[in-house]
Amino acid sequence: MKNIVTIGGGTGSFTLLSGLKKYPVNISAVVSMADDGGSTGVLRDELGVLPPGDVRQCLVALSESSAMLRELMNYRFENGGLKGHSFGNIFLSALEKINDNFAKGVEEAAKILNVKGEVIPVTDENTNLYMELKNGKILQGEEQINHNFEIEKVGIEKIYLKPPAKANKKAIQKILEADLIIIGPGNHYCSIIPNFLVQGISKAIRKSKAKVVYNCNLVNKKGHTENFTLDNYIDSINSYIGSERIDFVTFNTQKPDPKLIKKYADQKELLVEFHKNDRSKRNYRITRANILSDKKLKYSKSDALAAQRSFIRHDSDKLAKILISLLCKS
Amino acid sequence: MKNIVTIGGGTGSFTLLSGLKKYPVNISAVVSMADDGGSTGVLRDELGVLPPGDVRQCLVALSESSAMLRELMNYRFENGGLKGHSFGNIFLSALEKINDNFAKGVEEAAKILNVKGEVIPVTDENTNLYMELKNGKILQGEEQINHNFEIEKVGIEKIYLKPPAKANKKAIQKILEADLIIIGPGNHYCSIIPNFLVQGISKAIRKSKAKVVYNCNLVNKKGHTENFTLDNYIDSINSYIGSERIDFVTFNTQKPDPKLIKKYADQKELLVEFHKNDRSKRNYRITRANILSDKKLKYSKSDALAAQRSFIRHDSDKLAKILISLLCKS
Repeated sequence: MKNIVTIGGGTGSFTLLSGLKKYPVNISAVVSMADDGGSTGVLRDELGVLPPGDVRQCLVALSESSAMLRELMNYRFENGGLKGHSFGNIFLSALEKINDNFAKGVEEAAKILNVKGEVIPVTDENTNLYMELKNGKILQGEEQINHNFEIEKVGIEKIYLKPPAKANKKAIQKILEADLIIIGPGNHYCSIIPNFLVQGISKAIRKSKAKVVYNCNLVNKKGHTENFTLDNYIDSINSYIGSERIDFVTFNTQKPDPKLIKKYADQKELLVEFHKNDRSKRNYRITRANILSDKKLKYSKSDALAAQRSFIRHDSDKLAKILISLLCKS
Repeated sequence: MKNIVTIGGGTGSFTLLSGLKKYPVNISAVVSMADDGGSTGVLRDELGVLPPGDVRQCLVALSESSAMLRELMNYRFENGGLKGHSFGNIFLSALEKINDNFAKGVEEAAKILNVKGEVIPVTDENTNLYMELKNGKILQGEEQINHNFEIEKVGIEKIYLKPPAKANKKAIQKILEADLIIIGPGNHYCSIIPNFLVQGISKAIRKSKAKVVYNCNLVNKKGHTENFTLDNYIDSINSYIGSERIDFVTFNTQKPDPKLIKKYADQKELLVEFHKNDRSKRNYRITRANILSDKKLKYSKSDALAAQRSFIRHDSDKLAKILISLLCKS
């Protein structure tokens, strides 16, 4: 079987992995560990655990357990001292505590959830994401970065982890053995880039013989990547990898419902564009296809599947089909 | 296969069920729903759920899932907003919320935990235990009753549930179909008697053709049953059942370590005694045997197995062996 490594975190990885798991491939999901907001942030603060949120989403995506168990993992409490907590985050934190180790806790969670493939925290070390802007201002933590909308206007001086963190050895090994490395989709500065800031990841990607695919986001993020074209995303990621390592890019060609486009535009979130004539030569091949989800949104009381919160989003199955076809070509 | 119904709650049921599950019998554990203290009390208050604590202990006892999953269910958080909460209680509360129904939540939990047999909350209705003393004082809730040590001295006027609660239909059905009904061991007024206060339970026991065994506690409880002999426990339970329904009683003959006896005696918790000459005739047969645990206590950081907290306790395997032999006789 071919080896696929995905790199990301959050909703984007959830969507991607939900589709990929239906194919006979070995999946290793390398997951960002920079989250410090919401339920995850509270658990980090109060219990001193590593951030469970992104890992949980990947575990649930790859879980072959009952629908009930998967729903349970995404259930969010609505009252009292547990308010806002995702059950799955509490689950991962308890397993970390019992095993005295986050990675071991994730392994045990994967067994309980009957996970296909492997979910690998990009690092086992407790670290935080920082961003220094061109005006000298320092944004501390993913949550602060995520909610700052002046980043693009002011400009980024540097983005880094503090303390510096070494990659999980297994992440390195899987990247080196991969046939295909899939980056994104996901929040550019908060879910994607933090993976490349972990020592050893970019080097392993450069060294690996795998084809590298980037799944470009569908919409730009206000104040972060508001003016990014497809090329800008690729340049940005390649710069963190340290070489022009991206071989393929998936790009959605299906226009969403105009009402949805307007709704996003009102929030300054415009569709990512591709301007063919911007460059005469590109070192990556662009796979243009309809990879847009047209599913109606399902809401349930206990629904906390992040993937169902956004409106313009990738279709798991369409995306996976394209990626598997790239794997076969590679 | 023979049908066994156990009636109880808490640690006693945990010990009992851990032994019984090793035999090829159909086990239905009917569980008290009067708990309102600790983690359970907080979850009842804040989330409006039914009390998960006793049910959790029975589910874990009957679980044939991995040791890790069972340890997880008994893990208790030590810090922050989750401090004092048992993970398993949170798990059951989330499943109740998702399923909008406690009994359905328990069924789903049983599937996830690969439970042998069935755990049946004695009632699905939200109710509380009350006790009126001879001096007119009313104790509200199991927690208050459990921590009042004047009950025996003042005397009980009545003990009741408010609002009154109807039995779970499945509990009635299982009692009617049982070959053996096993009552106790357990906290007399807080875990055992509350089951008989639920409408329909005592009547079903009277009607059932099952043999009824009572596992007498090993030590009396200060201020509650401090002066009880074996006969007093039986009289008390028979009076709540409404007939002399108990056929067999197990009674431990093995003396615990004198140091332990002293430790308990210092807390006014003396070994339960049996005075043969108190009565000329008894309608129950007393099975005297060594059913005392001589295992060393195991403590681990995450250990919240109530069964391991007390020192003078039943041995799961010895107790089950005696009970299964009674089943074969019956």
